[in-house]
Amino acid sequence: MSFDLMIKGGVVATASDVFRADVGVRDGVIAALGLDLGDADEVIDASGKLVLPGGVDSHVHIAQPSGDGIVMADDFESATRSAAFGGNTTVMPFCIQERGAPLRATLADYHAKADGECFVDVSFHLVISEPNAQTLGQDLPALIEDGYTSFKVFMTYEGLALSDIEMLEVMSTARETGALVMVHAENYDAIRFLADRLERAGKTAPFFHGPSRPIPVEREATHRAISLAEIVDVPVVIVHVSNREAMEEIARARRRGLKVYGETCPQYLVLTEKDMDGLNMEGAKYVCSPPPRDEAHQEACWEGLEQGIFDLFSSDHCPFRYDDPKGKLNPKARTSFRWVPNGIPGVETRLPILFSEGVSKGRITLQRFVALSATNHAHMYGLTRKGSIAIGMDADIAIWDPEREVVISQSLLHHGPDYTPFEGIPVKGWPVTTIVRGKTIVRDGALVGAKGQGGYVARERSAYARPKTKT
Amino acid sequence: MSFDLMIKGGVVATASDVFRADVGVRDGVIAALGLDLGDADEVIDASGKLVLPGGVDSHVHIAQPSGDGIVMADDFESATRSAAFGGNTTVMPFCIQERGAPLRATLADYHAKADGECFVDVSFHLVISEPNAQTLGQDLPALIEDGYTSFKVFMTYEGLALSDIEMLEVMSTARETGALVMVHAENYDAIRFLADRLERAGKTAPFFHGPSRPIPVEREATHRAISLAEIVDVPVVIVHVSNREAMEEIARARRRGLKVYGETCPQYLVLTEKDMDGLNMEGAKYVCSPPPRDEAHQEACWEGLEQGIFDLFSSDHCPFRYDDPKGKLNPKARTSFRWVPNGIPGVETRLPILFSEGVSKGRITLQRFVALSATNHAHMYGLTRKGSIAIGMDADIAIWDPEREVVISQSLLHHGPDYTPFEGIPVKGWPVTTIVRGKTIVRDGALVGAKGQGGYVARERSAYARPKTKT
Amino acid sequence: MSFDLMIKGGVVATASDVFRADVGVRDGVIAALGLDLGDADEVIDASGKLVLPGGVDSHVHIAQPSGDGIVMADDFESATRSAAFGGNTTVMPFCIQERGAPLRATLADYHAKADGECFVDVSFHLVISEPNAQTLGQDLPALIEDGYTSFKVFMTYEGLALSDIEMLEVMSTARETGALVMVHAENYDAIRFLADRLERAGKTAPFFHGPSRPIPVEREATHRAISLAEIVDVPVVIVHVSNREAMEEIARARRRGLKVYGETCPQYLVLTEKDMDGLNMEGAKYVCSPPPRDEAHQEACWEGLEQGIFDLFSSDHCPFRYDDPKGKLNPKARTSFRWVPNGIPGVETRLPILFSEGVSKGRITLQRFVALSATNHAHMYGLTRKGSIAIGMDADIAIWDPEREVVISQSLLHHGPDYTPFEGIPVKGWPVTTIVRGKTIVRDGALVGAKGQGGYVARERSAYARPKTKT
Amino acid sequence: MSFDLMIKGGVVATASDVFRADVGVRDGVIAALGLDLGDADEVIDASGKLVLPGGVDSHVHIAQPSGDGIVMADDFESATRSAAFGGNTTVMPFCIQERGAPLRATLADYHAKADGECFVDVSFHLVISEPNAQTLGQDLPALIEDGYTSFKVFMTYEGLALSDIEMLEVMSTARETGALVMVHAENYDAIRFLADRLERAGKTAPFFHGPSRPIPVEREATHRAISLAEIVDVPVVIVHVSNREAMEEIARARRRGLKVYGETCPQYLVLTEKDMDGLNMEGAKYVCSPPPRDEAHQEACWEGLEQGIFDLFSSDHCPFRYDDPKGKLNPKARTSFRWVPNGIPGVETRLPILFSEGVSKGRITLQRFVALSATNHAHMYGLTRKGSIAIGMDADIAIWDPEREVVISQSLLHHGPDYTPFEGIPVKGWPVTTIVRGKTIVRDGALVGAKGQGGYVARERSAYARPKTKT
Repeated sequence: MSFDLMIKGGVVATASDVFRADVGVRDGVIAALGLDLGDADEVIDASGKLVLPGGVDSHVHIAQPSGDGIVMADDFESATRSAAFGGNTTVMPFCIQERGAPLRATLADYHAKADGECFVDVSFHLVISEPNAQTLGQDLPALIEDGYTSFKVFMTYEGLALSDIEMLEVMSTARETGALVMVHAENYDAIRFLADRLERAGKTAPFFHGPSRPIPVEREATHRAISLAEIVDVPVVIVHVSNREAMEEIARARRRGLKVYGETCPQYLVLTEKDMDGLNMEGAKYVCSPPPRDEAHQEACWEGLEQGIFDLFSSDHCPFRYDDPKGKLNPKARTSFRWVPNGIPGVETRLPILFSEGVSKGRITLQRFVALSATNHAHMYGLTRKGSIAIGMDADIAIWDPEREVVISQSLLHHGPDYTPFEGIPVKGWPVTTIVRGKTIVRDGALVGAKGQGGYVARERSAYARPKTKT
Repeated sequence: MSFDLMIKGGVVATASDVFRADVGVRDGVIAALGLDLGDADEVIDASGKLVLPGGVDSHVHIAQPSGDGIVMADDFESATRSAAFGGNTTVMPFCIQERGAPLRATLADYHAKADGECFVDVSFHLVISEPNAQTLGQDLPALIEDGYTSFKVFMTYEGLALSDIEMLEVMSTARETGALVMVHAENYDAIRFLADRLERAGKTAPFFHGPSRPIPVEREATHRAISLAEIVDVPVVIVHVSNREAMEEIARARRRGLKVYGETCPQYLVLTEKDMDGLNMEGAKYVCSPPPRDEAHQEACWEGLEQGIFDLFSSDHCPFRYDDPKGKLNPKARTSFRWVPNGIPGVETRLPILFSEGVSKGRITLQRFVALSATNHAHMYGLTRKGSIAIGMDADIAIWDPEREVVISQSLLHHGPDYTPFEGIPVKGWPVTTIVRGKTIVRDGALVGAKGQGGYVARERSAYARPKTKT
Repeated sequence: MSFDLMIKGGVVATASDVFRADVGVRDGVIAALGLDLGDADEVIDASGKLVLPGGVDSHVHIAQPSGDGIVMADDFESATRSAAFGGNTTVMPFCIQERGAPLRATLADYHAKADGECFVDVSFHLVISEPNAQTLGQDLPALIEDGYTSFKVFMTYEGLALSDIEMLEVMSTARETGALVMVHAENYDAIRFLADRLERAGKTAPFFHGPSRPIPVEREATHRAISLAEIVDVPVVIVHVSNREAMEEIARARRRGLKVYGETCPQYLVLTEKDMDGLNMEGAKYVCSPPPRDEAHQEACWEGLEQGIFDLFSSDHCPFRYDDPKGKLNPKARTSFRWVPNGIPGVETRLPILFSEGVSKGRITLQRFVALSATNHAHMYGLTRKGSIAIGMDADIAIWDPEREVVISQSLLHHGPDYTPFEGIPVKGWPVTTIVRGKTIVRDGALVGAKGQGGYVARERSAYARPKTKT
Repeated sequence: MSFDLMIKGGVVATASDVFRADVGVRDGVIAALGLDLGDADEVIDASGKLVLPGGVDSHVHIAQPSGDGIVMADDFESATRSAAFGGNTTVMPFCIQERGAPLRATLADYHAKADGECFVDVSFHLVISEPNAQTLGQDLPALIEDGYTSFKVFMTYEGLALSDIEMLEVMSTARETGALVMVHAENYDAIRFLADRLERAGKTAPFFHGPSRPIPVEREATHRAISLAEIVDVPVVIVHVSNREAMEEIARARRRGLKVYGETCPQYLVLTEKDMDGLNMEGAKYVCSPPPRDEAHQEACWEGLEQGIFDLFSSDHCPFRYDDPKGKLNPKARTSFRWVPNGIPGVETRLPILFSEGVSKGRITLQRFVALSATNHAHMYGLTRKGSIAIGMDADIAIWDPEREVVISQSLLHHGPDYTPFEGIPVKGWPVTTIVRGKTIVRDGALVGAKGQGGYVARERSAYARPKTKT
């Protein structure tokens, strides 16, 4: 038996096991695991390296239109190139429903932007901003059948925030169709109230982004989202959880027997609210929502990753340039934190941070790293051929040098923004080679793939989306 | 020294003590406690009786205008007469802000309805339904100065439910002015969502009032109200709490150091959701919000009374006639539970139920009964001359026969409705004589007072309204 | 009508009310409350002062025999004089059962030491150290009938610590006889284990008293004591609770429906573990068990006092001289913290600290102060004539100057020890006059009473001791 | 490349993945995974079947000496044969330290009983009953080096129960040597106290085993064990958890950042206390400790399995014959439940129950089944070559027919006892073939292996045993 590609001599890890094996790839698929498996057209020597499932980053924002002349700093080309360099083989951006436009047409726009541009595979979540009868009764059920099996709702942001009854209607549709609901949980009214007060008090620097969204704002919305899901009886994913109090809402819900899943992100492990307190406008570099908290909450998030409050670890990559009138430093942003675009880049740094802080420092096992970086995302969102190294799976692989020490720096990265909020953080462990469906995209730190080698992936319904009780 | 009135030979109780003493009254005020105090114009023999502070029922609805041709079954005359027979000397009804009308004008309407009609004293809470700049910036601060030092907000009911940002604005005004905020905590959107679904499924009987407002609907709103109060840093009273989960939100908040107070009502101690499951429309008699739950939650509410989750025990008297097209059985109510007026009468039965189930059955001490029935209400809402038997206080007194056994029945009561939801409940312990500011209103079960002997009482700011931290 | 004593012009407070009234005393009893009550042999002008129930300190140690040549620094004369100066009118010391001796004989010894020596009233708790058949089957039931209606068990200390089965047997006796059980909750084995390790590591300074009894040692024993009480179904008082985790055990138990009461002490409000970290042996001055914790736990204890986790606030007065070979600095104490006598004096400073930190700083109301300092102790332990200002109660009164500012200092105090652990703490509010059963003991800061004016008080069974379910 | 054995056509599952693959075995080891892997000496057709890691049952009792003439109903031959039929390839029995005997000599006895008798692999936990200096200072450290890397302590049972200080000493040794501590958590004193009372009340039937060990008895010991582990700072496994309250102790500990792991067993999923309420002595069949609880606690245990409170699912196989004077119905057992041997058989039924109730009914995924049945046990206890299907692992495999429906019955089983407590339970899914290190032991339900094919396995230290902080 012969193979297209053989990755030899490495230590393979899955969410379950760590073992020495060669990986034989044929037709873009993992065809064999073992030793002395036979010939291959191409052989990659992985001696001394870890052979891991390519990362699945289930929470990224790419090329979303923004109002007010703000422009996202990554298109699909740059975002997926950056993702590949960060050890990822699939990313899951959002298609944001535009009010007044057919959902499928908007989706077609996103596909048009992505087609032929991607270095890694892509699969879309839908964001529901207008849950009317057409959307819920017609469009969503059809799109779910077509493989868009998850959607996100926002409890904040102008034009996106849904009312509670809209949340209930969306969740009800999810229950009927078997889709999985993701929630951005912050109380919009409370944010507006606090932001108004801060502005009236002249507290307009980026630092005040944090005080405009304190922990009770997130905890409240988390409990509310969970309660609404409880009323409808449907599972729910709480994304980008930043603190112990919101985590406790997830834990409490589970103790009531509910299916509530949690996600956290690198910014909640290594950044704090103090990072937003820079001179001049430097703090704007760290403005994202929910905002980073403090060291105690970082520690809480680590516990959540270790103990299973969090099944998912994503980047929430949401890229804006810093020193740019269309980015963080747009003219209005200088007048108030309220106008600083929310979001930070991170698709390339997500996994090195988790590996270094988690695996290298002994907080989590390599298997848990694999689960948090890839497998759980694939399971959660119905990517049945992604997220593990097993026979028949897509040969999406990241080869890591566990000993390589790197200081994170903008100069090393490949994303669109002109900065990284993780500048200067030293990490041990780095992805050196990234393979998508058997094709090498990055080899030993150099781009060898071409755009268009990554494609769109339709998804199955998630096993995690099943309601507790049947109708 | 001589007195206008001497209550002799009874056992006096306060929230602190139980002791044998005569009570000497002069000029409507408690002037002396002791034995052999001297002469009096009038002597009441209280031998074998308990001499308690007259009940303060801080949560009643009287003569409120309702839409859709529904009419409340009590005016101030009948409500306060019923209150007096139930051992109360002060009731606190609500003045509901009418949208589009000046708040002070609406308040004048309520005063006009009450003036000269009352058998016991009356003090008004305000209900804020339109928290605009005029209301928050002008009217409320002035009214608080005038002695209307508490206001209530609703999280449900068409035309009353406030948005979160409106809640925050009202709470902020409360903080600035030293008023105390009361919250009706149920999620309006969730109720509408569930009611729609139940109706579409043909589930329209009164029984489905309960399933349209399940516990998560109340727990969610409770946590949200508390979180909003936490964001503003202002104390809050959660009224008519029906179940353990909402109680736990209060307890959790206190463990975060917050000042959150709780109230429960007789319906949550002795009724259950099954009472709404009557044949024909009988269930409508028990429709109130939140709905009664089950026996386990009754037990939880008792624990809350014993252990201090609840400082207040009120009737939430909200009277409608049953067999009346302007009451529970209005034409639309027969088409859906949604149109059954929410609320049940209870100002006359509140205290006998608490005394019998609490004191006579040994669940609570007599001192705790006094606290829950009178003293705590007065302290909570700034009625500085009410709620206890102490020198200088208004001589508001209820004389109870602790051994008298009564079966609650409509035929015994004096309220406006044509039924009582507590029909058939046997109680031990009954108020026989009620004295308001030294004037006997009910003597040995007979009305001897005249309407107009009860009057309006302006209030001080509540000590409980102080925020944890100062601005 | 005439009186022996009239306290005129003051503001009286009970656990329920604050009101302006004169207090008329006849035959040692409060005979009347009011204004212009008539003549009296003696008149005390209380204008500008607070007239409060004399403090009941339900947890003091007096003249207990100690091993190893250690001698308690207070006999009944000095302890009760100190108590009187601290605004107390009743103290409740312990009679410690001596192994091998008849319990009643030991009790007689304590009575002999107290008789004729006391300035304030005294009532004894029993400490059970040898729960054999004679003790449980014969002695305790008889002593409870005689008015010794509470007993304490220890979960630590050599010669005192009971095993779990002994605890269960004692609790079972309490249930059968209607006595109330108090528990000192620390895990003896864990303390021995940790102390051994610390000593082996050369960590022998007084500071290491704290690390030998960390919070889990107390939390564990608290949960265990509560669980044993739950198994027997009997109420229990957890004394001298020092921290939030142990408090949470009490709160959790209540949420299970159990009757668990809590006590805390001044040392847990104003001292911390750092106080034990003095140069030389200074830290020994603060050695008590459980040890003081940190500022966050002080704050937790305040919350417990405000919110009702704690019904009792006692001194745990346990006096040793500092610079004395029979006290803190005994020869062995210099070799290890293990031999520093456990306990600090505090009967005189308990109430000024609570008044100043609580009432003067606005944390608690004056009513709550009265409850925590006197009324609750009397209710909890069956002192039916103590703890409040009400008709028929013993005229045990402390007159306080709420404006007087004092810096606590050994030079001001009247206890036996040669130091106070509260040295240098400024307080606002001070007891100036103390009256026991109508006789003035301290007047305007000067001793005017004679020893022997305080006497022994037998007690009723506590209403708080009733089990939840009957046998 | 050729193989000794090829398992073809099945669906393989690991704790991470489910995939179609052949499994190639060489030299007793999994050498390749893939399709068309080449020739093999032996081919097993697994079409339509699941190819799973052989079960690892980390909690079984085999051939332990018992006092009072009681005899365990399984020796190593029958127990491991039964295990093989139940889809297991490794079992972990206990070597119980005999007081007064050298630990290593006792261990040699167990080895002697096992050598040459086993059908599946065996690895021993040690039970520490006499933690003296020899045991802790000499024997344990050496035995841990030899591969006995876990030990269990008991908080109940005469002759086994350790005191708290002994628990602390054992845990301290575990921390120093890197061993993992397992705890049987029930309060011995409370059990003795309750059993005495029940017996005195004539309540001696087997049913009263349950009331002698109510939930607080287990919850108390669970919290205590965790607290002791917290004091020493060492991870701990709480075995055979039966109820929500004990689970909550584990969850609380994790929220404090502690490493506490949980195990539950089939008896807590499908039996209840009512099963012990049989006529005559039938209830004795179900007597095990902790006792089964009720349906609500069954549901809680399921939640624990789904949500990760429990990492381990074991049988706690502890076999006694029922109708046998050396078993359940020994002469003394008829006089009191106290003398009914504690324990039930279950090594053969553990996995079918979990598969059927968990996987077939949709409660847990197949991956979670694999984790709970095999992988987690191997990881937890340092069986580095066991518990998964991955390259280089021992070829320990169970082939399951997921559609096969069986009613559990004694007549189908292969264990020593004369009954099964799970009689009559219908299951869907059954292990048909069991392979140990490449050798088929059971093929299509028939024994084809020989005793002695299973052997002893020394273990590595567990990664889970690492303390949170280093000394």
